[in-house]
Amino acid sequence: MSGNSFGSLFSVTTFGESHGPAIGCVIDGCPPGMVLSEADIQPELDRRKPGTSRHVTQRQESDKVEILSGVFEGKTTGTPIALLIRNEDQRSKDYGNIVDTFRPGHADYTYWHKYGIRDHRGGGRSSARLTAPAVGAGAIAKKWLREKYGTIIRGYMSQLGEIAIPFDDWQHVHANPFFAATDDPATIAKLEAYMDDLRKQGDSIGARINVVAQHVPVGLGEPIYDKLDAEIAYAMMGINAVKGVEIGAGFASIAQKGSEHGDELTPEGFIGNNSGGILGGISSGQDITVSIAIKPTSSIRTARNSIDQQGQAGVVQTFGRHDPCVGIRATPIAEAMLALVLMDHALRHRAQCGDVQVTTPNIAEKI
Amino acid sequence: MSGNSFGSLFSVTTFGESHGPAIGCVIDGCPPGMVLSEADIQPELDRRKPGTSRHVTQRQESDKVEILSGVFEGKTTGTPIALLIRNEDQRSKDYGNIVDTFRPGHADYTYWHKYGIRDHRGGGRSSARLTAPAVGAGAIAKKWLREKYGTIIRGYMSQLGEIAIPFDDWQHVHANPFFAATDDPATIAKLEAYMDDLRKQGDSIGARINVVAQHVPVGLGEPIYDKLDAEIAYAMMGINAVKGVEIGAGFASIAQKGSEHGDELTPEGFIGNNSGGILGGISSGQDITVSIAIKPTSSIRTARNSIDQQGQAGVVQTFGRHDPCVGIRATPIAEAMLALVLMDHALRHRAQCGDVQVTTPNIAEKI
Amino acid sequence: MSGNSFGSLFSVTTFGESHGPAIGCVIDGCPPGMVLSEADIQPELDRRKPGTSRHVTQRQESDKVEILSGVFEGKTTGTPIALLIRNEDQRSKDYGNIVDTFRPGHADYTYWHKYGIRDHRGGGRSSARLTAPAVGAGAIAKKWLREKYGTIIRGYMSQLGEIAIPFDDWQHVHANPFFAATDDPATIAKLEAYMDDLRKQGDSIGARINVVAQHVPVGLGEPIYDKLDAEIAYAMMGINAVKGVEIGAGFASIAQKGSEHGDELTPEGFIGNNSGGILGGISSGQDITVSIAIKPTSSIRTARNSIDQQGQAGVVQTFGRHDPCVGIRATPIAEAMLALVLMDHALRHRAQCGDVQVTTPNIAEKI
Amino acid sequence: MSGNSFGSLFSVTTFGESHGPAIGCVIDGCPPGMVLSEADIQPELDRRKPGTSRHVTQRQESDKVEILSGVFEGKTTGTPIALLIRNEDQRSKDYGNIVDTFRPGHADYTYWHKYGIRDHRGGGRSSARLTAPAVGAGAIAKKWLREKYGTIIRGYMSQLGEIAIPFDDWQHVHANPFFAATDDPATIAKLEAYMDDLRKQGDSIGARINVVAQHVPVGLGEPIYDKLDAEIAYAMMGINAVKGVEIGAGFASIAQKGSEHGDELTPEGFIGNNSGGILGGISSGQDITVSIAIKPTSSIRTARNSIDQQGQAGVVQTFGRHDPCVGIRATPIAEAMLALVLMDHALRHRAQCGDVQVTTPNIAEKI
Repeated sequence: MSGNSFGSLFSVTTFGESHGPAIGCVIDGCPPGMVLSEADIQPELDRRKPGTSRHVTQRQESDKVEILSGVFEGKTTGTPIALLIRNEDQRSKDYGNIVDTFRPGHADYTYWHKYGIRDHRGGGRSSARLTAPAVGAGAIAKKWLREKYGTIIRGYMSQLGEIAIPFDDWQHVHANPFFAATDDPATIAKLEAYMDDLRKQGDSIGARINVVAQHVPVGLGEPIYDKLDAEIAYAMMGINAVKGVEIGAGFASIAQKGSEHGDELTPEGFIGNNSGGILGGISSGQDITVSIAIKPTSSIRTARNSIDQQGQAGVVQTFGRHDPCVGIRATPIAEAMLALVLMDHALRHRAQCGDVQVTTPNIAEKI
Repeated sequence: MSGNSFGSLFSVTTFGESHGPAIGCVIDGCPPGMVLSEADIQPELDRRKPGTSRHVTQRQESDKVEILSGVFEGKTTGTPIALLIRNEDQRSKDYGNIVDTFRPGHADYTYWHKYGIRDHRGGGRSSARLTAPAVGAGAIAKKWLREKYGTIIRGYMSQLGEIAIPFDDWQHVHANPFFAATDDPATIAKLEAYMDDLRKQGDSIGARINVVAQHVPVGLGEPIYDKLDAEIAYAMMGINAVKGVEIGAGFASIAQKGSEHGDELTPEGFIGNNSGGILGGISSGQDITVSIAIKPTSSIRTARNSIDQQGQAGVVQTFGRHDPCVGIRATPIAEAMLALVLMDHALRHRAQCGDVQVTTPNIAEKI
Repeated sequence: MSGNSFGSLFSVTTFGESHGPAIGCVIDGCPPGMVLSEADIQPELDRRKPGTSRHVTQRQESDKVEILSGVFEGKTTGTPIALLIRNEDQRSKDYGNIVDTFRPGHADYTYWHKYGIRDHRGGGRSSARLTAPAVGAGAIAKKWLREKYGTIIRGYMSQLGEIAIPFDDWQHVHANPFFAATDDPATIAKLEAYMDDLRKQGDSIGARINVVAQHVPVGLGEPIYDKLDAEIAYAMMGINAVKGVEIGAGFASIAQKGSEHGDELTPEGFIGNNSGGILGGISSGQDITVSIAIKPTSSIRTARNSIDQQGQAGVVQTFGRHDPCVGIRATPIAEAMLALVLMDHALRHRAQCGDVQVTTPNIAEKI
Repeated sequence: MSGNSFGSLFSVTTFGESHGPAIGCVIDGCPPGMVLSEADIQPELDRRKPGTSRHVTQRQESDKVEILSGVFEGKTTGTPIALLIRNEDQRSKDYGNIVDTFRPGHADYTYWHKYGIRDHRGGGRSSARLTAPAVGAGAIAKKWLREKYGTIIRGYMSQLGEIAIPFDDWQHVHANPFFAATDDPATIAKLEAYMDDLRKQGDSIGARINVVAQHVPVGLGEPIYDKLDAEIAYAMMGINAVKGVEIGAGFASIAQKGSEHGDELTPEGFIGNNSGGILGGISSGQDITVSIAIKPTSSIRTARNSIDQQGQAGVVQTFGRHDPCVGIRATPIAEAMLALVLMDHALRHRAQCGDVQVTTPNIAEKI
């Protein structure tokens, strides 16, 4: 209830702070009998981890995951799976100058007011480092969904600041440091130059990430409140720095007429996907398409006006290691959160309606 | 768990279908001792109810609410408050022609696949009529928040199709059928003409609604998953027809630099409100600002291609009574959902951190 | 979270007070497609309702149930089922003399301290009348379990005060006003005389109720905290006036040796049932056997010492209509609660482990 | 939802298996600002740990606890507290002979049927070893309740097999290996001789444990389902091997008359405590008194008839290290579970009704 658990039937409870001894999570509700080891989880953590290019924070964390429970003789047992990641590179002294002044746009102001405690060490619990356990849990959800239904969940960066990034092909996403779905050299060069400039300025920038789930069974999602799109919005807006979420046509729906927005059906499947794969809060079997807005990092080297805990005016600058664009590492996080939502709803569907039918794959295929 | 309850500590469980005998809800967790009667709830229901202008559905429902429990001698007792609204104008025969064909963009396709049941009577449980109980519950939350913290929650329509609607003053919102915050005659005339045209065409259109909460205590919201913005996104995306949610600067954050986005602080309060009143998922005391995209109604008179339950191609037209723009009646709904989120988090905060301090009202005031 | 909902996946949220306009509940999570009407529910309510013999309260309530939602064309739709029971015989004036003095052993003392509100009308929310909605919900659970797995849930009174009541045969339970599983005329006569005496004395008495579930699938129950026996204990202790719960051998286990208590297995099934059908918190397929202790009614005509809301000493007597032995009407309630626990765990099992196998019925049969 | 979390607002999620690499838990919802270190937790774990006398299992575990998160500069931060205990003495080979035969009275039968997985290593997740994390969490709850309200929670063994153990004084509980509240040499000698005999026989025995909470605020507990006694029953019955739970007069209530059972009130407090400190599911400020029945250990050296996974008849004997009376180590576990229930309800009360009043301590004192 204190907001550190995600999901109801496939439930992930995380713990840890950016500069404490360890971070991790407990995953409850995983079906028994699935082959699982650290090797299934580590690659997803490696996609998110810091220090992989000059465009992200230079903090050195191997993010090596240890499975503490819930797996016996290489298979899930149906009991809780605990994942542990030890923090390795806690250079807390870097944060000394922001111990009692609030950073504009940062959670330090609200945490201090809520809890009366200030964990200045890298943002403590509010750090984006705390997305790592969810990425670990997401890897397990992805595996189960892929093996059970053939579901594939992938994301990419579609915009960096004002630079729109074209979608060319999924295969390019891992071939550049931006999770861009393009191999156009000019675009990649432009992104690199932009980030290099930004770093020199000591400033940061926002980004847009798109996530797509394919081969999703029809029927996932609950009516009224736990609609699949509502839960996706919750999951995505809960990622650090996200300020907006769209499903399908999203904000473009405002100016659409009903005769344009509603995706017509043929015996071969849907024509168009303005719905983003969700109708009335329930998956339709089409691709689920999500797009999110990520704000620029609030910890920047640029001096800014602020106040301290006593309410005195001052100037604050952040010299610790930070991502100049938190959006760059957000793609695997958004994928993981979408996987967790789908996994949870797959189990919820199973509880009330029996095992889900993987119907009309052709519909999803066509789009 | 089947998705018909909203909130954890101030919990609303709804029931009913568009054309069943009644709709309603049970509200659990309301603090005891608050003066409450139907007169506190009915006005909010009246703002949402159908048939109030020619621009909304002509279904005639008085939406008269009855409190069945939880109030004794004019005060809440701390036990569940049940609200009952009898359906009055169920003209189910109007829906005869869509009994087994799916409407493009409508939930009938997914409900049928999920439950194996087709309640064609006005969309059954998926109808926007089911937002009425939440509006009733929201009225109770609004009252408590207003009396306890002085919190004010209001919304308005900021865009209808491609027509942007300026915000002039809150006082105008109730003086026109669109919840527009303007009294500019030209704008109102334009909106009326647009809707009249649309109705003649038998088509529908989307809209954008903005909601603002003022005088919110600092400290509401939980870290990591039940962030205040995540819960708002969940609440808003769960409203029928919503396809996008923004907090504060929203999607504009993508192209902002950190030095521009992060709202600076002075001893007198924040400068700017890109954050939309939420930092790190926790309320900062500034105004909470939310904007949502509502898609056009899927039930339209325009003929569209579709399939029936047997997968056979056909054409579908809807002749029942429907809103040509569901966005028009969405303002009180969005206000109610925001009230429910804030109420729930006020109680959650109280549980863990003790009674909330209403701090720094000057900060919220200034903005 | 305020304690008015029971169950996680088959969830029952109740509302109402003893002397308010109505009582009822919302049942969320019922699988779709089950044939259901009021006729399936009313008989269970009739077994529990007041006024059926001279040994129970003479309040006249027909307890007629109305299904407000969740059923369409005679079948459950998978959406919430709301049950409504109007209160008919609220003779609140009877309670005038206990408006501000506390009854020894009654909830009026604690409700007043907790909520600062005193609903003296028949105990308000704390009345055993509030078990009626759960009995209604239990009827639905019983039907689903019976149709799906052949599960049969039945109870009987095994002790009234100091009178032990032998178990002869299930068929006798409905042939006497005590839910006694015997047709021995001497025993029945003894019970009647005992109750008649008690009524004349203006006193009350406790009772023991046993409940048995047969043909329960193997595998229901969750490890560690939501063990099946833990949830049964929660359900039973939550029934008004219950002070003790036993599963299987219960308190007799204290003096048993392991070589005596552990039920041996043969290829044909278990030998003995000290476990009460639950091992490690999970159903074994044997009969689930539960026994509960019900305290005597606290509202009695005998004068007793007490204090009023101002802490002043006084004497209190209750002249309203009350059951001299609440245990008499407790059998259908205990059955309903057991049904709700098993139903919820059947759905939970299905979520994580897939559809339950109805294994080894012979084991349960033999015992 | 898969049953590995306890509590709603002070929530404990455990993980681990008896012979896996580690066990532990994540505690969510602890109020911020409480001084906390391992030194507050370790003593409770030491009371429960194995190997402390010849009457308990000789497995050697230091049960050294590490706090991984949620504490900064010696105080709780309001974020999740993760506790980690590494397993040290996993002598799994001892279990080789029970790899595929079921022990009478043991969870191995039901786990195998539920999950299709057999973790034979010391019972895996079903081992009583998994109570250690809850004892750790309970230590935190005890500390908060003690500092906030002066609540004291203590337990003792009141019966071992057929030997009733008198209650003389709390101070003796820690002066003997049985948690007996007596220093009578004859009684202690009798218990030791009984246990020595039993060990020679290769058999096991049940026990009764009593737990008492003093200085509990009035008003804890929710009406209808989450009654304080219902939650205590759930907590206690969820402890491994518990088969019965009583509150206050418990099963003796059956033969009591209302004029005897209902505790009268005077301006100085209650006379008697048949209620066990709970009326209508809500704490009355009197001592909360609970008594539980613990069955004999199912893993014994005595040969017993059973079947294997293929359903073939056979004989099973357990040679691993087991407690001949699991009841001996159950006292600190029962205390911890009671602390967790009270802590959770203290926070729940605070959410709905504001900070709890610690009223009428004299009432509890007198009894």
